[in-house]
Amino acid sequence: MSFKDATLAEVDAAMNEAHVAFLSFKNFSGKKRASFLRAIADEIEGLGDELVKTAMAETALPEARIIGERGRTTGHCRMFADYIEEGSWVEARVDTAIPDRAPAPKPDIRKKSVALGPVVVFGAANFPLAYSTAGGDTASALAAGCPVIVKAHPAHAKTSELVAGAIMKAMSKTGMPAGVFQHLHGAGFEVGQALVKHPKTSAVGFTGSFVGGKALFDLANQRPTPIPVFAEMSSINPVILLPESLKKNFEKTATMMASSLVLGVGQFCTNPGLVLAVEGEGLEQFIKNFSAEISKALPAEMLHKGIAANYVKRLSETLAQKGVKLEVQSETESKIGDKNQGRPTVASVQASVFLNNPSLAEEVFGPFSLIIRCANMGELNKVVNHLHGQLTSSIIAEEEEISKHTNLLNILIEKAGRLIINGVPTGVEVCPSQNHGGPFPSTTDSRFTAVGTDAIKRFARPVSFQNFPDSLLPEELKNANTLGIWRTVNGELTRKGI
Amino acid sequence: MSFKDATLAEVDAAMNEAHVAFLSFKNFSGKKRASFLRAIADEIEGLGDELVKTAMAETALPEARIIGERGRTTGHCRMFADYIEEGSWVEARVDTAIPDRAPAPKPDIRKKSVALGPVVVFGAANFPLAYSTAGGDTASALAAGCPVIVKAHPAHAKTSELVAGAIMKAMSKTGMPAGVFQHLHGAGFEVGQALVKHPKTSAVGFTGSFVGGKALFDLANQRPTPIPVFAEMSSINPVILLPESLKKNFEKTATMMASSLVLGVGQFCTNPGLVLAVEGEGLEQFIKNFSAEISKALPAEMLHKGIAANYVKRLSETLAQKGVKLEVQSETESKIGDKNQGRPTVASVQASVFLNNPSLAEEVFGPFSLIIRCANMGELNKVVNHLHGQLTSSIIAEEEEISKHTNLLNILIEKAGRLIINGVPTGVEVCPSQNHGGPFPSTTDSRFTAVGTDAIKRFARPVSFQNFPDSLLPEELKNANTLGIWRTVNGELTRKGI
Repeated sequence: MSFKDATLAEVDAAMNEAHVAFLSFKNFSGKKRASFLRAIADEIEGLGDELVKTAMAETALPEARIIGERGRTTGHCRMFADYIEEGSWVEARVDTAIPDRAPAPKPDIRKKSVALGPVVVFGAANFPLAYSTAGGDTASALAAGCPVIVKAHPAHAKTSELVAGAIMKAMSKTGMPAGVFQHLHGAGFEVGQALVKHPKTSAVGFTGSFVGGKALFDLANQRPTPIPVFAEMSSINPVILLPESLKKNFEKTATMMASSLVLGVGQFCTNPGLVLAVEGEGLEQFIKNFSAEISKALPAEMLHKGIAANYVKRLSETLAQKGVKLEVQSETESKIGDKNQGRPTVASVQASVFLNNPSLAEEVFGPFSLIIRCANMGELNKVVNHLHGQLTSSIIAEEEEISKHTNLLNILIEKAGRLIINGVPTGVEVCPSQNHGGPFPSTTDSRFTAVGTDAIKRFARPVSFQNFPDSLLPEELKNANTLGIWRTVNGELTRKGI
Repeated sequence: MSFKDATLAEVDAAMNEAHVAFLSFKNFSGKKRASFLRAIADEIEGLGDELVKTAMAETALPEARIIGERGRTTGHCRMFADYIEEGSWVEARVDTAIPDRAPAPKPDIRKKSVALGPVVVFGAANFPLAYSTAGGDTASALAAGCPVIVKAHPAHAKTSELVAGAIMKAMSKTGMPAGVFQHLHGAGFEVGQALVKHPKTSAVGFTGSFVGGKALFDLANQRPTPIPVFAEMSSINPVILLPESLKKNFEKTATMMASSLVLGVGQFCTNPGLVLAVEGEGLEQFIKNFSAEISKALPAEMLHKGIAANYVKRLSETLAQKGVKLEVQSETESKIGDKNQGRPTVASVQASVFLNNPSLAEEVFGPFSLIIRCANMGELNKVVNHLHGQLTSSIIAEEEEISKHTNLLNILIEKAGRLIINGVPTGVEVCPSQNHGGPFPSTTDSRFTAVGTDAIKRFARPVSFQNFPDSLLPEELKNANTLGIWRTVNGELTRKGI
């Protein structure tokens, strides 16, 4: 089964329908939108094995991973349901009037977040469920009150179609207006470009390559009315191995790093693509153990032909760079079959070479890690200063050892959205404290996260209501505060009514 | 006295110095940064009459206005001082570990907002104090922990220099590193462009014309590393006069509208440039009374020659449009003198003409209002649908009357950042509930405000800390919560420690 690309007329109709839906959907109570999100989770679960099998067939990802991803997807739908049902996310601020203030009376002003408008979401190749049709972008946009138009990823269009069907059922079961969720196919660029350029589109969510994300970002900024694009793009997630810890813990560090590197055939935005360490006995022991682990790792099928071909190309380009030494590649023989295989690979390079070759700081999407051999901590700091923006950065070290290098930590914060101590970057917990974002080029706006409850902020904007009679105020801003949400009233955070 | 434009080498040196300062300034406690902001307010007050006289001479604004603006400037410095000293603005989120969770342990993750980096602020022509050197952009950026580089507005460069001197004194008195605040002159575009393009610049704050703001926005997005630009640009602030109220209250509505229109010679971003009403006896009576008020209003000197010349040009272009009827212009004779005079002017046009002439929806910066004569409420709704994004929109109406037009309110929310009932758009209260922002082209990002405590959000980004020992966490995220700030701990908002 293959799907027909949407025509430009269909794109136009979808966006206009989304806008009509927006004008009512945005005003639904948190409770009503929550029931929709919970129904989406239920309907996705209702798809049962068919969804798992379809996703496995389209992505070559193993069953456990797909089941895990399904759990994450239904989990974030329910998380956002709880979040908007509680309702404090609108950041209500109330400043009551002081009519007799001199020299001028103080008006009554109240503020809350409202939905931005129809949001276009691009399905991600590497997350057929959790960052695609009912993924984090979709769930957070719907939670905010924004209709969503998903452009299915062509590599898992059937999976996308199944999930879209589940969402449509949830819509009808919970009385959502037509147009709140729509699903379009488009194998080439035309559909996506038309969606981003459409005047009724208010924002864009994207997870994918730097080239793809940057192109959409540029397109959105060149519109007569620019719109925000949250694109999560490219990150090599540096892992810094401090020398004292490495000397002691090279063995367990190697095991931990190897399992992070090969997880999901390295097809994670948080894959540890860069390892920074100071030369010495510890590093050699680490490389020896790391290599042993990687050499045992089996190559595995990547998501699709394009991704596998790109991995082979980028890998061979990188290994061909002057000064890059191949440390290890997994055995070529594989029990899984050789179709679209991604071979786990580790190379190393002197820091001085890395600093002078910008191409080595670019992402190789797949199970590849480049070890940067630094002469000393001074050179390691230089490499850190040289890095682009990242989603994550990790430090493997003893607590005392880091205390001696607070300068390093101070710079690292400028480079990444999430810092990890003694852990690997893979594994993105979905929770309020999560920041899955970071300085450019890891995302297009470091001020937002794509994962966790705060992801809703990408799709909302504040509106102030001045001198409104209580009857005309949105529920969250009325005196009584019947929702019992947290509000900042005359500067004090409270759940009390006025 | 005139000031030398900064050279490109000086721009480069300033940005590099700002970046060095950033690496320590961002880590100062809220209390320490608050002392700096309070010292700025004190030092500005310490400038006394000299500042008032200089600003009056450079801007032609009257003494009471300058004194009021100074109060607003010192007021927002102290407001941000209180806000960051309290400290909850960092939106701390703590999710503690669950090591025995199945299938995978839950890590400890904690998140807070951190400063974005050096911020370039462009002084605004129309607010020599409150939106210039120590204006809202500067105060909120410093509050967030970002060094600020101000590009002085050439029309009030001496005022800017005086305020910069006060900030420098405050820096030295409170032990701030050199480079936390810097002040550059530049009469042409070169200095501003070089500042926006500099690799060490992290964000831009701008208040001014659409052409200027959009050019900086485009420049920032075309950088190898795009950066956020918050530009507050162009707004005509529609005021909707509903018919029932107009019939009863035409007289007091006319008085209120006239004083809003001529305030500050109409040189406010919130000036009521558009009036929407349904044709009929009420509207005719309103126009009669409004005209009588405007005709009595004296023309007054505008901020500078360029603004006055532009007003004359845009006004005559608008009045020359087909179907535009001049209703009233203030008397030409003036006791203030005729240099750079802005004549308060009101015109009207049929809605059908307005809908077909996009140039009529563009801002005429100065004391000008265009009344849109609508045949009925249906046509008035059509005009509202047709509007660009605005900072504000006002409705003058009885409470009951608005209840009959909730559709209008529903659309209006999509068009503006602040809605006002029975009030005028001028007068922007500085408080937590204020949203001074709005959909494009009123600003470049409707998700942020330029006024009020939330303005700090433009210059901060979240960072997550995973698996950090307590000793290495930022103060706001340590278990003890010695600052006593509000934090979301495992989903619950609390000020308790862990």
